[in-house]
Amino acid sequence: MKKFKIPFSGRSHNYTEKEIETVVKVMQEASTLTQGEYQIAFQDKFCDYLGVNHAFALNNATSALELAAQLCQFKEGDEVIIPAHTYTASAYRFLKNGAKIIWADIDLKTQVVSAESIRACISSKTKAIVVVHLYGYCADMPSIMDLASQKNLVVIEDVAQAIGTKIKGQMAGTFGDFGVFSFHSHKNISTLGEGGMLVVRDDEIASIVPLLRHHGHCDFNYVRKDYWKPAMGNLDFPEFNGLKIWPNNFCIGEVECALGEKLLDRVDKMNQEKRLRAIHFIDELSKFEDIEFHRVDSERHNYHLLVGRFLNDKRDKFIELMADNGVQCVVQYYPLNRYDFYIKAGYGKANCPNTDNFFDNMVSFPFQHMMGDATFDLLIKTTKKVLSEI
Amino acid sequence: MKKFKIPFSGRSHNYTEKEIETVVKVMQEASTLTQGEYQIAFQDKFCDYLGVNHAFALNNATSALELAAQLCQFKEGDEVIIPAHTYTASAYRFLKNGAKIIWADIDLKTQVVSAESIRACISSKTKAIVVVHLYGYCADMPSIMDLASQKNLVVIEDVAQAIGTKIKGQMAGTFGDFGVFSFHSHKNISTLGEGGMLVVRDDEIASIVPLLRHHGHCDFNYVRKDYWKPAMGNLDFPEFNGLKIWPNNFCIGEVECALGEKLLDRVDKMNQEKRLRAIHFIDELSKFEDIEFHRVDSERHNYHLLVGRFLNDKRDKFIELMADNGVQCVVQYYPLNRYDFYIKAGYGKANCPNTDNFFDNMVSFPFQHMMGDATFDLLIKTTKKVLSEI
Repeated sequence: MKKFKIPFSGRSHNYTEKEIETVVKVMQEASTLTQGEYQIAFQDKFCDYLGVNHAFALNNATSALELAAQLCQFKEGDEVIIPAHTYTASAYRFLKNGAKIIWADIDLKTQVVSAESIRACISSKTKAIVVVHLYGYCADMPSIMDLASQKNLVVIEDVAQAIGTKIKGQMAGTFGDFGVFSFHSHKNISTLGEGGMLVVRDDEIASIVPLLRHHGHCDFNYVRKDYWKPAMGNLDFPEFNGLKIWPNNFCIGEVECALGEKLLDRVDKMNQEKRLRAIHFIDELSKFEDIEFHRVDSERHNYHLLVGRFLNDKRDKFIELMADNGVQCVVQYYPLNRYDFYIKAGYGKANCPNTDNFFDNMVSFPFQHMMGDATFDLLIKTTKKVLSEI
Repeated sequence: MKKFKIPFSGRSHNYTEKEIETVVKVMQEASTLTQGEYQIAFQDKFCDYLGVNHAFALNNATSALELAAQLCQFKEGDEVIIPAHTYTASAYRFLKNGAKIIWADIDLKTQVVSAESIRACISSKTKAIVVVHLYGYCADMPSIMDLASQKNLVVIEDVAQAIGTKIKGQMAGTFGDFGVFSFHSHKNISTLGEGGMLVVRDDEIASIVPLLRHHGHCDFNYVRKDYWKPAMGNLDFPEFNGLKIWPNNFCIGEVECALGEKLLDRVDKMNQEKRLRAIHFIDELSKFEDIEFHRVDSERHNYHLLVGRFLNDKRDKFIELMADNGVQCVVQYYPLNRYDFYIKAGYGKANCPNTDNFFDNMVSFPFQHMMGDATFDLLIKTTKKVLSEI
């Protein structure tokens, strides 16, 4: 494996001394290491941060997507609209839970779905939409929610990369029926590499999520005279709309929750720092006509990732030269319909020209938050040099 | 909630300074926080510890049980034999994966299943057995494996509480087709509250577990000229015996793996310390005829939990008086068939008299490893006092 001066990092940020102290303190002092006070504190603070009533900490964002898919209660033939330009976790849990996928195309400029690209996929069988705020840009949720409301569709926002972004003051993840957040190693804030959160709008659904998260554990519907008879509370089969839903074990540990709660104190600052850098990078490259960027100088974009699109056929040459100059650029996201997995599942075809165009011409620059200023300057300098040469 | 002098702890052990330093170091230095070098090191050391070839670190033991259940590939009508005296995670993933449960009874003395109690449940439809080494006692695996071999049954060992126990030098979890380990907050060693490991005997099965663990990620079946074409490797649909198996996201973080690897250095010592205490406790109470214990002074029992059974009707009075004296005893494990969950799933009936007898008369003492010597002495003293009084 080539050693890069500026690698495309497997993690996005460092931890502060305070964050590390929090982890140490919980390791030393917590009376339980899972399903305790820190989970509650993390969830409560997350609710406050977003301005919602129900948030559930989970072991990863895939678990959040699985819960949303379970709660859609798909019937035979039901369709769910999902962008082909996203990571696989956004899509396959819906397939597993019985839905048919209809691949939506993205807007070439914003790289996310729009009300128009979703509308083109709607049929009488459409039950749900997954909107992915990819790269950190919040899709046009007001328009999408208008459409969903007209057509009576369940809306799942995949906010894995877009925590803290807003449209007119309203946070991404709070428009739809479900908001899915990720604290994976690559993400804006990470709870030790794995973690997630599910935001739920409906009160009744919210009341069964704890059972779905933890094996069906719940109280008995009576007060026990002796705490050990029966022992340890009840286990029940969660039901919604009169149908049973299988419980899971999607629990996240207390240390991760305590860390996540602390990270919420600086997520806005981290987003702001990345946005300032992204805008600076884009503006520095504005005279190069080979490549275009999606420039959004507002809280609607957190620039979790920094991506550009070549307007000619120079992308591969560019990445090769960047690599020769020590910078590891990558290409994201392989259109899901091209993977063997989706081909074998019967979803190998998609009518998504923008998805294909973007993937075939895009470049994703190393853009981890923990990149130092000198490294960031070197990134700009090297990019300019290579763009001048090709 | 009553405040106890000796609570039944939500965690089983403390972390040493070295273990905490390991966590801090990985937080500061790891190049990725998931699916990296520490996971490999943890798995390799776990294999060495057990003397096996394939071990896969997971986000919890339920995920390990889910993988084992998926890999059984149950067909309509297939039956799996599971003890009714265990925690729910041992059972319901098999139900979800299409098996019918046949509840096996336990042996009253050992509190685990035996070849005889399993034999009584076998039919022409039996496909698999789940053997739970409950409380830290390794069931009679040589006899059970003889039976399984005669009847061609898949054997899943649930070693959640029995890590490090042995029969004639062979480790629990290495007899069956699958060995399931837990690093939950309550368990012998805990990777920050949540974590698990799946040990797999078959080489072919082992080759697909990484795909099942992580969304179906795998290499393309050709070498890419440019690392970004296609980006990030392939996604495939795992297959076994010509049948597809849905992938999952059961990944555990690097910090947890690094900590787990360190904990393996002292798991034998911790087991030995608990065993010595348990034997001492049991011997101290030998003159009390109301209660009996399962005394095993060998590496076959690690006394993860310390449980006794009353031979008369004094159990409830005993727990009440212990609580009055500041000691929180509990009752485990509610026979699974009595829970609303299993009743609603159609498994509310069981012919398991020993399971009922044991649950109705058992007591589980606080026995966390981190209990200090003075507290342990107080536990013995209080138990003697209460047994003398009732």
